[in-house]
Amino acid sequence: MTPEVELVTTGAELLNGSVVNRHAQWLGDELGRLGWRLVRDTTVADDRDAIRDALFSALARTGVVVVTGGLGPTSDDVTREVAAEWAGTGLVMHEPSRQVVIDLYRRRQKPLNDTVERHALVVEGAQVLDNRHGLAPGEYLCRNDRHLFLLPGPPREFQGVMRDHVLPWMMARNAGGQGKKLVFQVSGMGESDIAARLTQMGMDALRIDVAYCALPARVTIRVAELPGSPDDVIRAESMIREALGSSLYSDREEAIEQTVVRQLGARALTLAVAESCTGGMVGQRITALPGSSAVFRGGVIAYANDVKTGLLGVRAETLARCGAVSEEVAGQMAEGARRVAASDYAIAVTGIAGPDGGTAEKPVGLVYIALADSQTTISRELRLGGGRETIREAAASLSLDLLRLRLSGLA
Amino acid sequence: MTPEVELVTTGAELLNGSVVNRHAQWLGDELGRLGWRLVRDTTVADDRDAIRDALFSALARTGVVVVTGGLGPTSDDVTREVAAEWAGTGLVMHEPSRQVVIDLYRRRQKPLNDTVERHALVVEGAQVLDNRHGLAPGEYLCRNDRHLFLLPGPPREFQGVMRDHVLPWMMARNAGGQGKKLVFQVSGMGESDIAARLTQMGMDALRIDVAYCALPARVTIRVAELPGSPDDVIRAESMIREALGSSLYSDREEAIEQTVVRQLGARALTLAVAESCTGGMVGQRITALPGSSAVFRGGVIAYANDVKTGLLGVRAETLARCGAVSEEVAGQMAEGARRVAASDYAIAVTGIAGPDGGTAEKPVGLVYIALADSQTTISRELRLGGGRETIREAAASLSLDLLRLRLSGLA
Repeated sequence: MTPEVELVTTGAELLNGSVVNRHAQWLGDELGRLGWRLVRDTTVADDRDAIRDALFSALARTGVVVVTGGLGPTSDDVTREVAAEWAGTGLVMHEPSRQVVIDLYRRRQKPLNDTVERHALVVEGAQVLDNRHGLAPGEYLCRNDRHLFLLPGPPREFQGVMRDHVLPWMMARNAGGQGKKLVFQVSGMGESDIAARLTQMGMDALRIDVAYCALPARVTIRVAELPGSPDDVIRAESMIREALGSSLYSDREEAIEQTVVRQLGARALTLAVAESCTGGMVGQRITALPGSSAVFRGGVIAYANDVKTGLLGVRAETLARCGAVSEEVAGQMAEGARRVAASDYAIAVTGIAGPDGGTAEKPVGLVYIALADSQTTISRELRLGGGRETIREAAASLSLDLLRLRLSGLA
Repeated sequence: MTPEVELVTTGAELLNGSVVNRHAQWLGDELGRLGWRLVRDTTVADDRDAIRDALFSALARTGVVVVTGGLGPTSDDVTREVAAEWAGTGLVMHEPSRQVVIDLYRRRQKPLNDTVERHALVVEGAQVLDNRHGLAPGEYLCRNDRHLFLLPGPPREFQGVMRDHVLPWMMARNAGGQGKKLVFQVSGMGESDIAARLTQMGMDALRIDVAYCALPARVTIRVAELPGSPDDVIRAESMIREALGSSLYSDREEAIEQTVVRQLGARALTLAVAESCTGGMVGQRITALPGSSAVFRGGVIAYANDVKTGLLGVRAETLARCGAVSEEVAGQMAEGARRVAASDYAIAVTGIAGPDGGTAEKPVGLVYIALADSQTTISRELRLGGGRETIREAAASLSLDLLRLRLSGLA
């Protein structure tokens, strides 16, 4: 089987400007790691004729087709009907899935109705793929060596059912090409700077597959072996380690907060935060990780200046002299958070995220981060580009990275 | 002309996991404001056969087709060749565009070469759409009442040439058909409950276009007029308002934090937060909005219990008697945040987001939210489903919704 997949994404919200379609990026990334390839994404609204046309032509072109969306209970959920038409069957009620719906409604003491039970309708003859994250199960159909997967549309459910059922199916079916694959996470360097350094070291001459993926203040480099040149991956690894050094924060598929929470947990150390322009983002990212309560104590969202003085003990004189966006205030915020939350470490962020509030002297994108521990307080000035969310994301990541460097003895 | 557009997006980076395709969301939003509709997005790699298939079938279905990408100078830029094949012509050098390339290279003192001049190759007979943001111009071709636009792929260039040339063309051509479109934002009700209520009221009999989009604790209902039945949208609106009542939080394309920040700003009132299981998410969502500093003062991330007592004044006796996840603690957290941040309102969230930490008495998904103002403190018990992030998202949204209800005199 050619390891190629087409994606058909359904949902009016993806075409009317409401929502960015992230399914193709996520799936392309996952498939790449299994040696499969996403060759097309077709996005159509919840319209029976459009879905039929997209689905039937995808199945005519490509051996494996993944459809997302349209498995819910409402009248615009028509994917099942179209899939049944393709399979030449009808819809049936899947009793185990119906029981899941009934049990959930009973537990929540909500009245059941016919509409909600439609979640459990499946194509007759389909293999049902249970969904631990929602009510509508996934489905798998095979006809004439064409493989059709129906997946729920909400990203969490789509990714969950893909991980539980579809990616393992694909992994099992890709015979060759399971070469060595390496991941490098880089903090605080731009994609083109990284690429320029690696080119200079001669990495372009290696027979490897390299992909860069850039996020604010983070670049992921994925290197995969090509058939016949197993040593070139090893050479690439030493070039990357030499070129990027302490900017490499992890060799796993993880964000900086995961690295830091793991480092702290291993040494039974605790962390607090003091956030101004990020407004809670650092705390939110840390607490998104299950088990972060072992290391994270909390902190202060010090958006207004008198919250900085009142709760964190930032001196009014420093605020008046240096301004809220300054190295001095960042340092006092970190020290204050460490003191009030009684933690081993505290990180602080204060800056101008824009779009307004910038001046010639302190432009949008100017951010100070600081780290306090029992011995010292260190801070960094950042000059960040991009819009408000990019600046906030980068500032949050780099404040966590400052802690990573400190914990590793590099700051 | 039916005001419908198909988008064909080209680029390997959109399918291999490197980049999220945002063209469809941007274009759908712009078109919606002009009364046009994006009906499909097909994303393919830089592959001549795939682009030909996608382009030719889009032009067979739909009157206006926009293609992005593949206008650059390298060997994988093949969109022009495919468009020339469709138009039955060839490629020619466009001298004014070539001069732009030459001038730029001269100014930057970079050596010219044949490859870079390929930027100025266009389809013979195409109208050239100048690109103020890059080197490759856009192009417009019309054959047999089919309209084909070729646009550069980088978002800034795509959006620039669209704004300069293509959107004005579309605006000029959409005579009638600005059908009525309504948006309803629903807080705290599930998609199937909403659909069941609306079915019961007879909405299925109306000739309208309805789409539901569900997020944690939020459902967006979009209703659009179908040709020939203008009154049915009005009927749908009164059914929705009657069926959903105070669960309707907005009739704009916005999240609950936008509604609440607008409500507070209009009355010059301020807000603080006290967050346990959400860990900063409420503050992060509020501060993602530019200008939120006018109403948001900050607050406390009270993840550990002694941060709840130390910074927020939650009584140790209450914590011992009721537990951290309790109505009483939520209330004291809100009161403490309001006091320490000197705000008009404060909202608090404490709960069990899982996956661990649940008990028979206090299961995963049990969350208490509270709201304190100068007159009273109110709280709500929530029983939320889904995984850790869904529970946190829903809890954050519903705490903001409690404030919305209070500000509207409904709680």
